[in-house]
Amino acid sequence: MKNTFGNSVSLTIFGESHGMEIGAVLDGLAPGIKIDRDFIACQMEKRSAKGEISTSRKEADEVVISSGVFEGVTTGTPICFVVKNNNTKSCDYEETRNLARPGHADFTANCKYHGFEDYRGGGHFSGRVTAAIVAAGAVAIDALKAKGIHIGTHIKRCAGISDRDFMDVTSDVLALEKADFAVLENEAAEKMKQAILDAANDKDSVGGILETAIVGLPAGVGEPWFDTFEGVVSHILFSIPSVKGVQFGKGFDMADMRGSEANDEFEIKENNIVTKTNNNGGINGGITNGMPVVLSCAVKPTPSIYKPQNTVDFINKQNKKLEITGRHDPAIIHRARVVVDSAVALAVCDMLALRYGTDWLKGN
Amino acid sequence: MKNTFGNSVSLTIFGESHGMEIGAVLDGLAPGIKIDRDFIACQMEKRSAKGEISTSRKEADEVVISSGVFEGVTTGTPICFVVKNNNTKSCDYEETRNLARPGHADFTANCKYHGFEDYRGGGHFSGRVTAAIVAAGAVAIDALKAKGIHIGTHIKRCAGISDRDFMDVTSDVLALEKADFAVLENEAAEKMKQAILDAANDKDSVGGILETAIVGLPAGVGEPWFDTFEGVVSHILFSIPSVKGVQFGKGFDMADMRGSEANDEFEIKENNIVTKTNNNGGINGGITNGMPVVLSCAVKPTPSIYKPQNTVDFINKQNKKLEITGRHDPAIIHRARVVVDSAVALAVCDMLALRYGTDWLKGN
Amino acid sequence: MKNTFGNSVSLTIFGESHGMEIGAVLDGLAPGIKIDRDFIACQMEKRSAKGEISTSRKEADEVVISSGVFEGVTTGTPICFVVKNNNTKSCDYEETRNLARPGHADFTANCKYHGFEDYRGGGHFSGRVTAAIVAAGAVAIDALKAKGIHIGTHIKRCAGISDRDFMDVTSDVLALEKADFAVLENEAAEKMKQAILDAANDKDSVGGILETAIVGLPAGVGEPWFDTFEGVVSHILFSIPSVKGVQFGKGFDMADMRGSEANDEFEIKENNIVTKTNNNGGINGGITNGMPVVLSCAVKPTPSIYKPQNTVDFINKQNKKLEITGRHDPAIIHRARVVVDSAVALAVCDMLALRYGTDWLKGN
Amino acid sequence: MKNTFGNSVSLTIFGESHGMEIGAVLDGLAPGIKIDRDFIACQMEKRSAKGEISTSRKEADEVVISSGVFEGVTTGTPICFVVKNNNTKSCDYEETRNLARPGHADFTANCKYHGFEDYRGGGHFSGRVTAAIVAAGAVAIDALKAKGIHIGTHIKRCAGISDRDFMDVTSDVLALEKADFAVLENEAAEKMKQAILDAANDKDSVGGILETAIVGLPAGVGEPWFDTFEGVVSHILFSIPSVKGVQFGKGFDMADMRGSEANDEFEIKENNIVTKTNNNGGINGGITNGMPVVLSCAVKPTPSIYKPQNTVDFINKQNKKLEITGRHDPAIIHRARVVVDSAVALAVCDMLALRYGTDWLKGN
Repeated sequence: MKNTFGNSVSLTIFGESHGMEIGAVLDGLAPGIKIDRDFIACQMEKRSAKGEISTSRKEADEVVISSGVFEGVTTGTPICFVVKNNNTKSCDYEETRNLARPGHADFTANCKYHGFEDYRGGGHFSGRVTAAIVAAGAVAIDALKAKGIHIGTHIKRCAGISDRDFMDVTSDVLALEKADFAVLENEAAEKMKQAILDAANDKDSVGGILETAIVGLPAGVGEPWFDTFEGVVSHILFSIPSVKGVQFGKGFDMADMRGSEANDEFEIKENNIVTKTNNNGGINGGITNGMPVVLSCAVKPTPSIYKPQNTVDFINKQNKKLEITGRHDPAIIHRARVVVDSAVALAVCDMLALRYGTDWLKGN
Repeated sequence: MKNTFGNSVSLTIFGESHGMEIGAVLDGLAPGIKIDRDFIACQMEKRSAKGEISTSRKEADEVVISSGVFEGVTTGTPICFVVKNNNTKSCDYEETRNLARPGHADFTANCKYHGFEDYRGGGHFSGRVTAAIVAAGAVAIDALKAKGIHIGTHIKRCAGISDRDFMDVTSDVLALEKADFAVLENEAAEKMKQAILDAANDKDSVGGILETAIVGLPAGVGEPWFDTFEGVVSHILFSIPSVKGVQFGKGFDMADMRGSEANDEFEIKENNIVTKTNNNGGINGGITNGMPVVLSCAVKPTPSIYKPQNTVDFINKQNKKLEITGRHDPAIIHRARVVVDSAVALAVCDMLALRYGTDWLKGN
Repeated sequence: MKNTFGNSVSLTIFGESHGMEIGAVLDGLAPGIKIDRDFIACQMEKRSAKGEISTSRKEADEVVISSGVFEGVTTGTPICFVVKNNNTKSCDYEETRNLARPGHADFTANCKYHGFEDYRGGGHFSGRVTAAIVAAGAVAIDALKAKGIHIGTHIKRCAGISDRDFMDVTSDVLALEKADFAVLENEAAEKMKQAILDAANDKDSVGGILETAIVGLPAGVGEPWFDTFEGVVSHILFSIPSVKGVQFGKGFDMADMRGSEANDEFEIKENNIVTKTNNNGGINGGITNGMPVVLSCAVKPTPSIYKPQNTVDFINKQNKKLEITGRHDPAIIHRARVVVDSAVALAVCDMLALRYGTDWLKGN
Repeated sequence: MKNTFGNSVSLTIFGESHGMEIGAVLDGLAPGIKIDRDFIACQMEKRSAKGEISTSRKEADEVVISSGVFEGVTTGTPICFVVKNNNTKSCDYEETRNLARPGHADFTANCKYHGFEDYRGGGHFSGRVTAAIVAAGAVAIDALKAKGIHIGTHIKRCAGISDRDFMDVTSDVLALEKADFAVLENEAAEKMKQAILDAANDKDSVGGILETAIVGLPAGVGEPWFDTFEGVVSHILFSIPSVKGVQFGKGFDMADMRGSEANDEFEIKENNIVTKTNNNGGINGGITNGMPVVLSCAVKPTPSIYKPQNTVDFINKQNKKLEITGRHDPAIIHRARVVVDSAVALAVCDMLALRYGTDWLKGN
């Protein structure tokens, strides 16, 4: 199902970068959940471009909710979120219409949609569509919080600079909720920002790794096959533009471990069953074990760079040079973190609703 | 959908490690595809335990096809594959019934199934269920070959030892089809096998990284959001026991690149549009671009080790010591490669059928 | 999947009768299909209330398309249709908020949504939401026409008065496309309208039967089990408010036939394989046989009547009397026919895309 | 999803009439449900051919459960049911291989599967596949009973003879559980059986109407759109071979009612909210209202008749005469009733699991 994700709680997205608006329909969320418009605005603000390290295309990104909310709470029927596109400069794209921007979807969009695609600013492929995911995700995040489930993402690595690992995961996650530039150590933030500016000055861009933790999830969520917790969450995460890798727990680092190191031994702690380590990221056999779920996403450097690049005119099949103009981000990782939080929250709400029924997240 | 994967071509799996049999129902595959029982047997053999580097539980793993094949070709209706369980020693598991094996799903299964789960040998969570995926996958792989699409997986890394990268991807993939221990450089094989034996001698286990390439795929397969090529493939790959990370192209290594390095420039080559590099693994914006699709999976070390481990009795909530007996693999990565090929083939068949219709893979 | 229908071509609906707007997201339709705004307006007009036989709540029902269309044709990405609600009189509903209107969903909505539902005018249950189905359906109908597939629905029966049966199905279907009050015999129209007015004068309402034909469908569409042509189409038809029965071909009348009468004998006609009769409605074993597909829906009388009715206050659990005020239709069957056409078209587009691929309906 | 039905509780079916076996995989059913093998056998017996009014192909139809049951109860993982085909006479079909049996799927199967279909005895289209639905349905029915939910189907009409309507629905349903020939009035049974024999003597066949009631369902199950209770149930019912119509409550009879008659007034009865009549069959706005759900299916006469029929050779495109030999039923309605019960039970389990979570049906 193309632009729809989820079985019991589902999200359908629509819109193009330079169209009238982008939006999302969130269906299946329990009734009675309070809509906190300030929190939605706050999440949109986290995604928004700001300062020198982002594109100069800045939009107010006001979220209009046109259905599914009555007297300030969810009704249980579909919630439509819409964000208008205001600040579009489509002329930037006309003259390069047939040139495949390296790292972008122009060429593949043409293969799939045969030239009928809206090419302006990436059209439906644009990262701008993530604004709708963030709007819907804000409601999902709020619904989870009311059940004691919190999600937080930090920039584990950017432009070769690392943030510290999660330590006290719960307090780290709570701290991240308020963070503007999501790192756990302030010094890392300054270095990362400088590295992003350096890349911008070089007409280039940088990528990084986002690490996410979910705390408060009950044990027993996920399926042994196919709809494993990892499978469902990775499925939605790979929708986020520029995500090229997803791992759980120690992920690729486990490849070099031995079993005696990688296995997380169990122990009783305050009458709870916990693991001493969490290399498996809170998941065994596709199912949560009650420890924090930890996962990370590789985010490739923003493909839009101002350096001249070789490419092709895919209509006339000719080699060409391309100099991208317009307004672009030298890094998106600091903006992407809230998209990851949102996508994870939506997937988690879906799995919880399947497991415990559609009323489990219900408000009072 | 729990034990079913796919929309147009779908696989449903069933069975437990120590039950009567394991099996799979493959539905939606086009009619007219020749069933090559020798190839199925050959694929099963690749998955089978053998030599000193595998478990001593060795099974014939004969595949019975009980439906969906008539006069040697697929009918287009569901194909049921069954593999009997013969060599089971269930008594190995009785006395440790309440002990959560670290790294395994015993505890999470209990959280989800409340003690009703078949605990013997991991039950439905057992890697043994992958035999059914391999049986079904063999038919999918054969159907793809007839359309010029080939899939190959090598052990990129095992126990800290690396194989070389893909070079001429097509010939590498074709070579892997015949490989017993799937590496591209023979020296790597010997070193890896020795490292596995060393771990076995230490009552321990090892993991690694599997790298997969798909050649011959048309451009234009996959969706911009949610059902991105990456999203669909990662979803099924995370079902394979011990897979803890999935990346496409350079994946996590792209996190440290700059855009000018990571972007794959396009060029015209023999009148085709290709990219000069393939850091994006043949996928832009969730859609194939005609280059080889390259992806890799992190495989954690086998959780069953003979070293004593700390754990808990999850019924009586007590700390316990566990010494695993029974028959276990010091490494599964050399067996898992054919499971990865199979899972990828099934996902690819599904995406192709959605894109081009249910007859696209039809035989003559 | 609650408010989303379809696998390859899917529709997601949202909105409430007295909310800001109602709308739909149509995803998966092929690129390159011309958007004929006049035809959309014409379809909306068919659904609109008019004359004495409809509610006095009349709305312009202008359709705004906010995504998925570029330069007048579909892009292949999600198309969002929105219809504003202008003419709402919510005060009509406040004082009867806790009274279950007989035949309506007030009580069941309360059981499901626990009082959080938007009760005004039926909220999300309102027939008004079908305006979004009609808007999206218009594009589907147009796409089918370009492939020679036409759908037409007539009022087979209303208030006890019958229209004639389909005769030359293709020309009947083409005639219905232009019909305002969809009957095949003009005399039936006059009698039915009078009977509707009679019921309105009695503060009562009437129902009827809609019969639909699809011509031009290829043979071979549908599945033997579960996603039979009948199963998929009935699934969406039972979403249309007031539909309480769906039958294919002679349907319930076949219950009294013998096999020798019910079986449709095959014959060669102009080198085509056809059936001499069409009791099975163009479907054998769940799959189209190339004959016109014929189906019918039972539409119950509009539940909103002005006669006093007995009911309960479902919050305070008390017996109550109810006199419905506001603006209501004495019959909806003449408006529902275009909803049936639209729903059928959407289901057919989905089945065709699954069968022949996502480009099959592509424009030039 | 072709041969798979359901979202949270799902059924996948496989097998052909003259293949090795037919079977089904039931996934998502809660753990801890006792497997009553006698009840399964009893349900299979209800479906089996017997006496003069059925085919002389009689099979033991022993059900083997090969997975998902451990120590006599469900584990919560997929349950595979298999029924061997023993009594096949495939030679009956060879010489008529290219002749489209009127009312059967031979021609449409050929359109869809291009001649690769297993044509013997209808192959995968055969009513024999319903044996797998009955086996799986027996477990679903048992799980529902443990929650106080009972399903019963009677032959409302057969060969023009009517049974009485449901009166005290609960006691009628309980009585039907034991009935061999499922009618509410014994006299009707005798007349129907005689009428079936009369048709058989005329080398002909008869059809009828099955009416089903579900008692004990909670209010609030089903969705307002698309996954309405009616939509989901009709979707699966139209899979049952020969079902050509499905209606809820008074269904097509409501077409001739006025609103004042059709509306079911609410009242308080023993402190419960009930309706005085049940024309809507226990469903308002797609959602159960707590009254018995009542629905009926039109079953066309068995298409296999011994009378000579006109047809075509669909390979050579020639008009032909056909005389069906082999062993066939003059009526299947008395056998189909248990298939309807089973299909309804599976759909209901799915909707309940979605609504209340996967543990709702859990045993103790």
